[in-house]
Amino acid sequence: MTPFAPHVYADRRRRAAEQAARAGLDGILVTPGPDMTYFLGYTSDTAAERLTLLVVPAAGTVSESAPDGITEALAVVPRLEAHDLERNAVGPVEVLAWSDGDDEHAAAGRQMRAGGRYAISDSAWALHVLALQRSLPGTSYEPFTLALPMLRAVKSSEEIARLAAAGAGADAVFAEIVQRPFAGRRESDVAAELDALLREHGHEQVDFTLVCAGANGADPHHDAGPTLIHEGDLVVLDFGGLADGYGSDTTRTVHVGEPTVEEREVHDVVRAAQQAGFEAVRPGAACQDVDRAARRVIDDAGYGEHFIHRTGHGIGLTTHEPPYMVEGEGLPIEAGMCFSVEPGIYLPGRFGVRIEDIVVAFPEDAPQGARRLNESPRELVVVG
Amino acid sequence: MTPFAPHVYADRRRRAAEQAARAGLDGILVTPGPDMTYFLGYTSDTAAERLTLLVVPAAGTVSESAPDGITEALAVVPRLEAHDLERNAVGPVEVLAWSDGDDEHAAAGRQMRAGGRYAISDSAWALHVLALQRSLPGTSYEPFTLALPMLRAVKSSEEIARLAAAGAGADAVFAEIVQRPFAGRRESDVAAELDALLREHGHEQVDFTLVCAGANGADPHHDAGPTLIHEGDLVVLDFGGLADGYGSDTTRTVHVGEPTVEEREVHDVVRAAQQAGFEAVRPGAACQDVDRAARRVIDDAGYGEHFIHRTGHGIGLTTHEPPYMVEGEGLPIEAGMCFSVEPGIYLPGRFGVRIEDIVVAFPEDAPQGARRLNESPRELVVVG
Repeated sequence: MTPFAPHVYADRRRRAAEQAARAGLDGILVTPGPDMTYFLGYTSDTAAERLTLLVVPAAGTVSESAPDGITEALAVVPRLEAHDLERNAVGPVEVLAWSDGDDEHAAAGRQMRAGGRYAISDSAWALHVLALQRSLPGTSYEPFTLALPMLRAVKSSEEIARLAAAGAGADAVFAEIVQRPFAGRRESDVAAELDALLREHGHEQVDFTLVCAGANGADPHHDAGPTLIHEGDLVVLDFGGLADGYGSDTTRTVHVGEPTVEEREVHDVVRAAQQAGFEAVRPGAACQDVDRAARRVIDDAGYGEHFIHRTGHGIGLTTHEPPYMVEGEGLPIEAGMCFSVEPGIYLPGRFGVRIEDIVVAFPEDAPQGARRLNESPRELVVVG
Repeated sequence: MTPFAPHVYADRRRRAAEQAARAGLDGILVTPGPDMTYFLGYTSDTAAERLTLLVVPAAGTVSESAPDGITEALAVVPRLEAHDLERNAVGPVEVLAWSDGDDEHAAAGRQMRAGGRYAISDSAWALHVLALQRSLPGTSYEPFTLALPMLRAVKSSEEIARLAAAGAGADAVFAEIVQRPFAGRRESDVAAELDALLREHGHEQVDFTLVCAGANGADPHHDAGPTLIHEGDLVVLDFGGLADGYGSDTTRTVHVGEPTVEEREVHDVVRAAQQAGFEAVRPGAACQDVDRAARRVIDDAGYGEHFIHRTGHGIGLTTHEPPYMVEGEGLPIEAGMCFSVEPGIYLPGRFGVRIEDIVVAFPEDAPQGARRLNESPRELVVVG
């Protein structure tokens, strides 16, 4: 992915240090993956059993590595990776390299406050979390999603531009796929085409290409398989991946030939629910309000028991991240949050319908509401 | 990957339950990834922020889910994934589905013994480990690598056959790549060819294709980049991936045109070290003895400070896993362990040499030693 300007990464680390201080934490611990990409402009996906850990002390704390009181990020890194990190990470970041055979968790612990409270990447390995707990007894750890759910949730205008480009790419994929034949082909054939089209439309990574025909559509996470698509099937298409480092994720349900009255009705309910979820993005709303608004429409239509998942999830450097649009998530929606709104109705043994767009909360052109990053038709599209 | 017979997975769970009991554990906790593939013949890589957890009680314990005293594995799984798991996992496994908005960690905790001791997948997410710790205070967790390092370390003859096939595929790749031109091309061009060749030779997944020319070879984890390969360069080629679910990983260092006396000498030292590491696989040896044997040769030749990594790592459903051939690893080598032996010498700013084979400990045809799964020439091969 194209890196942002160096100050972007330094600003992110500074904001994280401030958020950590406000949350009463001593710092944040970042492991390889999207969090590290976010804070360093670089990550390593090799040798995950070797500890790589970026320690960002909370603002105002004095770290041992910066006894003059300057808050400075420090990366604990296997010696094998140190050169790569020094060359590619966007600094200033101090590097502490360890060698095979060292106790790297003790080394990392010496950069932390004994008895302190730290937030750590959700996806940090148990191997490392448990070893850190043992190295520094009395120090406590909380996952980012619980301790600092806002860490990557609010996107900058540059990030939103990338998400918009990814969304536009996904929309172009949908426009092309509905021109192709469905009846008589396997779900997996259509999935392979979605994969190729996503790559044609700027995606360097494809995360999922769900194609769920007929009764398979009643399983929200059914993957594309050998099932033949028939005339008369509803087909759920849910696809996305990363384009220039940022995610797309969109769902449309199409019909092979003319739909029945019932199929149209269910599709209309889901479409109205998706619209209601979208419109629930208002100043003062919490994440769960988006879920409630979409769910109410489906409940009122009598399909409540068949909407069996949350309404949405955040998107950014990954296609699934906080914030979650789910009952119980009281986090207020803030300007720049980007997330999916994707209600569905699933009738076991029969069919399913889902409609999903990525939306941005309170953008400049709609400061009281949301803007969709997907604009594929939301009417029921008939394919051949 | 082709599944093994159903009894294989049941046997693995039974052996794990027995190992757990011997280690004084109450059970093992398996999260998606290679561990779950190993024990269920199935894994899910979607929605990792949603808890999927296979609980295997230690042998002889009575789980709440099996009050009649039968040790039974139980999978806690998001409702969205339950159908997929029930269809694809190799049973018998009880399934406990949870829905978005539920406290899934509390649900998992109810399947565990309060105050118990559990081993958990190394790569389990911090998000889940920390939430489990909070749900069941007083219960303790240890990563598989520390608590049960042997869990997947000893391979069955069926697994060794797949590792051998993957290794033979990697050897075929080497035989082809050395016929191609090196001088004047970029490292990344050669890497792309290695990727394509690995796929041609049975690999469904390519994990790494390191091509490190000239001074880049002095960085053991240098990836292939835009560097042009020149006449006179040593080039380290380190590549591997998964073929029918099992890993390959081999390294050879080739020379573009005629090597110098020094280059030959360094290569000879590494070759002798690799041979010594291989021969150190003897009854009674511990993992660290392989490292010591290889390191002694390099030390004695005066290059000790330039061998900057451990000598090897296990391989199986992943290309990097326990056991590790590293100083301090006292684990005895057992029949059926498969691991790399890959010493190297790295001269900063100049060049590097590494030679790596996968070996099987105490196979039927060499019960007192090891058998290599790579047989590419270990002499310094000259390329064009």
